[in-house]
Parts: sequence; structure tokens; C-alpha cells
Amino acid sequence: MKAHVHITLKNGVLDPQGKAVQNALGALGFEGVGNVRQGKYMEIDLDESDPAKARASLEAMCEKLLANTVIENYKIDLEA
Amino acid sequence: MKAHVHITLKNGVLDPQGKAVQNALGALGFEGVGNVRQGKYMEIDLDESDPAKARASLEAMCEKLLANTVIENYKIDLEA
Repeated sequence: MKAHVHITLKNGVLDPQGKAVQNALGALGFEGVGNVRQGKYMEIDLDESDPAKARASLEAMCEKLLANTVIENYKIDLEA
Repeated sequence: MKAHVHITLKNGVLDPQGKAVQNALGALGFEGVGNVRQGKYMEIDLDESDPAKARASLEAMCEKLLANTVIENYKIDLEA
């Protein structure tokens, strides 16, 4: 089973990397670019085939390693 | 209009960051974790309201700045 995990900064947390991208796009001549928020994206292959167990395991992984839950949110999508 | 851009390493390109995550998950006791591929994820706010124009503009941004198209793929999703 394949999982897609998105890790994004919580609202209100400053995102200097996104801001730098926004400024760089402006400097390159792209107009009408508003807020840019940058996050991480992971594709994880799991041996587990039960979706509920896979999700529980992925949540534990996010809490323990993948996301800093003080400042980041995570979203788990399982591929059918 | 809001766009979601995923930037991932092409198949065959080594992903040491993903490998490190995979090893760390194993060291933390998570079993059955296979390949991990790490990518980037961006949320971009655009003033443009025409989806075709927005997509063309985002493709140009990816080609010029956001992705290194020698080793990376990009995927653009527009929010309705």
C-alpha cells in the first residue's frame, strides 16, 4: 500500500522559504502571485494492506518523526 | 485561485533524504516500511482566475524556478 503524506506549516507560522519563492517569482516577472506556502511531501510504501492499520501507523510516524506538530500539520492519503 | 504544486524526484534519481527517513522509521521500530521518496509541496495563491492561463503561468514558474527539470517532475493541481 502506498501513502502520500503532506506536511505543511500551521497557519500563522512564518514561512520564510515560501516568502523567498514568492519574491523570486516576482523578480522573474510573474505577476499576480500572492502568498506562497512551502511544505513537504512524502510517498511511503508500506507492507501493511489494511487501510485502518496503515493509517494508524502513519499517524504515529508523523507524530514521532515526520512532522513537528508544534508548528506543522500533516495530512495522510492512502492509495486504493 | 489557489494552486497546489508537487515537485518530486524522477524515477531512478537517488533520494538520500527519503532513504534517511526510511532508515529512521526502521530505527524507531516501525515495521514494513518500504521505499520512501521525499518531495516538495507548494501552495500558491494567484490573482489569475482563468484556469488555463493560471496553469500556463504555473508551468512556466515550475520550468524556470520551482523545479529542476533535469531530475524533478512537477504536478500542478488547481483548486476549483
